[in-house]
Amino acid sequence: MKLLYPNTLKLLPSALAGFPTLTLHLYDAKAPTLPADLHDAEILVTWANAPANLSYAAKNLPNLRWIQSLAAGPNDVLAAGFDTARVKVTTGSGLHDATVAEHTLGLLLTAARRFHEMRDAQTLGKWPGYLGGPQPDREPGTFRTLRDARVLVLGFGNIAKRLTPLLVALGAEVKGVARTPGVRAGVQVFGEDSLPELLPQTDALVMILPGDTSTRHALNRERLALLPRHAWVVNVGRGSSVDEDALFEALQKEEIGGAALDVFEKEPLPEGDQLYKAKNLVLSPHAAGGRPQGAEALIVDNLRRFLAGQDLRNIV
Amino acid sequence: MKLLYPNTLKLLPSALAGFPTLTLHLYDAKAPTLPADLHDAEILVTWANAPANLSYAAKNLPNLRWIQSLAAGPNDVLAAGFDTARVKVTTGSGLHDATVAEHTLGLLLTAARRFHEMRDAQTLGKWPGYLGGPQPDREPGTFRTLRDARVLVLGFGNIAKRLTPLLVALGAEVKGVARTPGVRAGVQVFGEDSLPELLPQTDALVMILPGDTSTRHALNRERLALLPRHAWVVNVGRGSSVDEDALFEALQKEEIGGAALDVFEKEPLPEGDQLYKAKNLVLSPHAAGGRPQGAEALIVDNLRRFLAGQDLRNIV
Repeated sequence: MKLLYPNTLKLLPSALAGFPTLTLHLYDAKAPTLPADLHDAEILVTWANAPANLSYAAKNLPNLRWIQSLAAGPNDVLAAGFDTARVKVTTGSGLHDATVAEHTLGLLLTAARRFHEMRDAQTLGKWPGYLGGPQPDREPGTFRTLRDARVLVLGFGNIAKRLTPLLVALGAEVKGVARTPGVRAGVQVFGEDSLPELLPQTDALVMILPGDTSTRHALNRERLALLPRHAWVVNVGRGSSVDEDALFEALQKEEIGGAALDVFEKEPLPEGDQLYKAKNLVLSPHAAGGRPQGAEALIVDNLRRFLAGQDLRNIV
Repeated sequence: MKLLYPNTLKLLPSALAGFPTLTLHLYDAKAPTLPADLHDAEILVTWANAPANLSYAAKNLPNLRWIQSLAAGPNDVLAAGFDTARVKVTTGSGLHDATVAEHTLGLLLTAARRFHEMRDAQTLGKWPGYLGGPQPDREPGTFRTLRDARVLVLGFGNIAKRLTPLLVALGAEVKGVARTPGVRAGVQVFGEDSLPELLPQTDALVMILPGDTSTRHALNRERLALLPRHAWVVNVGRGSSVDEDALFEALQKEEIGGAALDVFEKEPLPEGDQLYKAKNLVLSPHAAGGRPQGAEALIVDNLRRFLAGQDLRNIV
């Protein structure tokens, strides 16, 4: 049985060894084809594959039974035209939690501590004295620290579970919104119908929604208007979940405090897009994730399940 | 007995009430004098006082017995000429731990996640694509995440104790250097004589040294040369602890990865100073602290001790 693993990240083949019927084969995930001697593969591991590579695999691997993607979502695999009646697809959900949580924390601290404004001053050769020295404290209607800050996570899943203890350690009060309400990781998670009450009590709104039709423009003009004037929006989920025109307007009119965006409706954000120059907008180039952590352990766990005929983890 | 408290931060007088022999009096810490009816005060709380205000107090408060500064160090009070044989001085050590730790974490994440480079690209209206999308992982000789990063804290005291759990939660390996070696807050703390072995194994060097003659240029040319080429220096202690000329040279020659400085040998950093344009230099305008947290609780604890004739906390 052949398993193909990609050259787009450093996987340790030795950490996948130990299954006697299995052979491991490195392939070029950026190439538009796959060598003929790999066409009888049954298992395909994918990461950052060229679309042409995936389309070729969908047409030329007749024995394929399982694709293990290392991406958080299956979008690229599903778009390539695999016969999902025959081929199981599992995602790398969980492999990006730590790295996305770290980036999100960095964006929140950038917003609170105004590192972007400091950078702008430095670029001009100026000392941004107004951001240093003795500072006001306990000012209502500001977001200048995570201590006592009210952070609302829209899309409270596994990334939020990693992020929450970090925020709590810094003194923040964390609440969540998700499809299923309840208490998760010690955080009160509300349904979407609670947003009208929650948004006005939010200092930082962290968005970690997946990109599907149900989340399109989840942050729209109406909901933006419910945020306090000092509130920041941090989006590390998918760009489609924010109405960027409405956000731009809210920023320009200073109806919110600012926005730190790692994802955009169009990526790369086109040159000349108004968002580049929006007031209090911090841009990050879809950099939160992109580094699967612990991929071998997930592959091995799913390999064992696959060979035992058991349910796979992260099945789509 | 009169206690004078300053108008330079929001202290809650009600949180200082309950001592029957004590009266509380607000004063203008920026004024060059103090009103005559306050000259018989025995206790003075200081924060961000004008030097002239402190000098005036040193000359005109004959009954003064105790100064409670809310700053981390006593430098401004000691410089004002109080008779320290008669007047006890206590500092606000501890009131800044959380806020400095938060800022330090933000600077470390800025360095690792390259938020400053992202800002530079945004300013130019460019998408910094090289920092986003699929990224290399497990690259030796890089500092791109706190996960598995080797963080060495030079000056391992109370701020480091607050910072450490945050770094550990992000996956960093933390070691410390201080006058007294030992295990503190779960961290192995070495003596200064271990620096030649420690520096070459450091991804991020965090400096939290006080500003006295013993720490002057603690980070000098010789020690900078021991850091790996990818290592970052973060200084949130005092500017005098870094030889800025040697640092500038190390940055320009890319002998280290970068530096994020909150403190400088001269503050504000003079316009035209070469550091503004140094390669991979992130400037923060002495903004880490500046917001005492929990000042009332410290004052009350020391008031009780003072009235009971017991040893004061944070005595100089």
